Amino acid sequence: MRDIFVLTEADLRKFISLNLDIVDVVERAFLALASGKVVMPPILSMDLPDAHGEVDVKTAYIPGFDGFAIKVSPGFFNNPKIGLPSLNGLMILFSAKTGLVDALLLDNGYLTDIRTAAAGAVAARHLAPPHVETAGVLGTGVQARLQIAAAHLVRPFSKVLVWGRNAENAAACARDIAANLSIEAVAVADPAEVVRKSQLVVTTTPARDPVLKADWLHPGLHITAMGADQGGKNEIDPAAILAADLFACDRVSQSETVGELQTARKAGFPADRMPPELGEIIARTKTGRSKDDQVTICDLTGTGAQDTAIATYALLAAKKADIGTIIKA
Amino acid sequence: MRDIFVLTEADLRKFISLNLDIVDVVERAFLALASGKVVMPPILSMDLPDAHGEVDVKTAYIPGFDGFAIKVSPGFFNNPKIGLPSLNGLMILFSAKTGLVDALLLDNGYLTDIRTAAAGAVAARHLAPPHVETAGVLGTGVQARLQIAAAHLVRPFSKVLVWGRNAENAAACARDIAANLSIEAVAVADPAEVVRKSQLVVTTTPARDPVLKADWLHPGLHITAMGADQGGKNEIDPAAILAADLFACDRVSQSETVGELQTARKAGFPADRMPPELGEIIARTKTGRSKDDQVTICDLTGTGAQDTAIATYALLAAKKADIGTIIKA
Repeated sequence: MRDIFVLTEADLRKFISLNLDIVDVVERAFLALASGKVVMPPILSMDLPDAHGEVDVKTAYIPGFDGFAIKVSPGFFNNPKIGLPSLNGLMILFSAKTGLVDALLLDNGYLTDIRTAAAGAVAARHLAPPHVETAGVLGTGVQARLQIAAAHLVRPFSKVLVWGRNAENAAACARDIAANLSIEAVAVADPAEVVRKSQLVVTTTPARDPVLKADWLHPGLHITAMGADQGGKNEIDPAAILAADLFACDRVSQSETVGELQTARKAGFPADRMPPELGEIIARTKTGRSKDDQVTICDLTGTGAQDTAIATYALLAAKKADIGTIIKA
Repeated sequence: MRDIFVLTEADLRKFISLNLDIVDVVERAFLALASGKVVMPPILSMDLPDAHGEVDVKTAYIPGFDGFAIKVSPGFFNNPKIGLPSLNGLMILFSAKTGLVDALLLDNGYLTDIRTAAAGAVAARHLAPPHVETAGVLGTGVQARLQIAAAHLVRPFSKVLVWGRNAENAAACARDIAANLSIEAVAVADPAEVVRKSQLVVTTTPARDPVLKADWLHPGLHITAMGADQGGKNEIDPAAILAADLFACDRVSQSETVGELQTARKAGFPADRMPPELGEIIARTKTGRSKDDQVTICDLTGTGAQDTAIATYALLAAKKADIGTIIKA
């Protein structure tokens, strides 16, 4: 009989929220990825057309971490019709020494939200120009709010511009950001204006046709594209990726299959050109932004390494806070 | 807040044991596989050489089942040195309608043992000669015992011959089988003798070099090979597979990558010859054994469909038996 720690979403929300500690934990995961010692198999993906659903399974083993997480993320898109969220899921944390289950994190996707935003902060920390006055966001969902909060931890901008296809949602998102960060945040009707007036832009949409055009690029801009995470998704005009001074991503193999490199490769991003991964830029084995007036773009598809990092962090923090239920199994 | 059912191995052992109901449930899963409507992605496999470990993730969505399971099976082979079993794992049962977690089955591999044995019974039911007097088993572990118990449910033989590399283990296995089934069971020093004297043989070893030779085949023999489940494993002499009247398997794509077809294809089993899958034989869309004196071989690599079938069955049975813990999450 062993103790298995069970943490529900309600438990996790009591003691896990976005902060610089978590940004640092996720940054370490990217750094480990760049070391070449992480074992991160391709995402297991299952489509369930009968149920209008899909399930993704991600995992990664990071040497030096006590555990490794396996994350299961179902998305069932008929759920809102019956009052349930589309996205759910859980993480299972296994001991990296014995393979025994250490913890069940029944987070309904909450930890994914946090680690995804934290990755945005890591990208902004290493690629955005040092001084950001205005940040922009395309998209108005949970990640629009969290990505801006995360970026603000590393680039304390004073103004936020929000664009979404639905003006009411954009206004609500701007209000929430303003209240959360105590800064000015306004909804803007034209995405071009958001990009042109910002030094840091995050795209957080499920777009299958680009929402950010090459024409809008300007010196001293960093863009983090975190929306694309499936075949067919595409937020950034491939011409923008070709025109940027630097294109980076969290994982090249994932960007090529589920991220922005899907279209960029077709549009002429050379097949033999390996863009730097975020971890390589952190490790300084590849060059990141070298001048303030460059245009940089970073594509985040979401990695199992981030899941292992946040799950390990969450279990330690839960034990410290004495939160959770123990099952003898 | 929803109810998530948690069942530990101790819970499951109270009300789940090998029986004909479970054989039927697993048979339905194979039948569904043959319908072409099951969604079963390739196994996610992660090697952890630093820890002398590996992790497999299997899943399958079967239309008509209320849920689908995702099974995580870690194997950490240094564990016995610290008094822990090498194999562990759990199944997570999700609603097939909403993707929400219905149950956590913390079975440490127990349900896998049962569904694997049940698949052996399904193979024996559809491929063994109708009258089996003597059954043989190569291997002396948990599956040697369970496979013989499962086969006995569908072919009530009166004698069992057991061979293992370690004579003491073989003797212990024979004693356990005799006690469990109240029939004669004896350990035999020569595997050739086991095969030559049996009408039904199950191989349950982790062999990487064949333990069953083509020379030993004789009319009226069925062999189920359940040991190979990874690249490089091989229990059956490829010449035996070429010589048999019928070779079948649970899933061709898996037999080719982790099962007996790995070596058989290289030895001359034509690349364009698609052997029948067990489900196709059950569905009678492909021919199984047509004469009592044929030699048949069935390779079982283990499918996510079996996991979904037994996990669904276990949850229903747990609710009926009022066993388990409920977590509000």
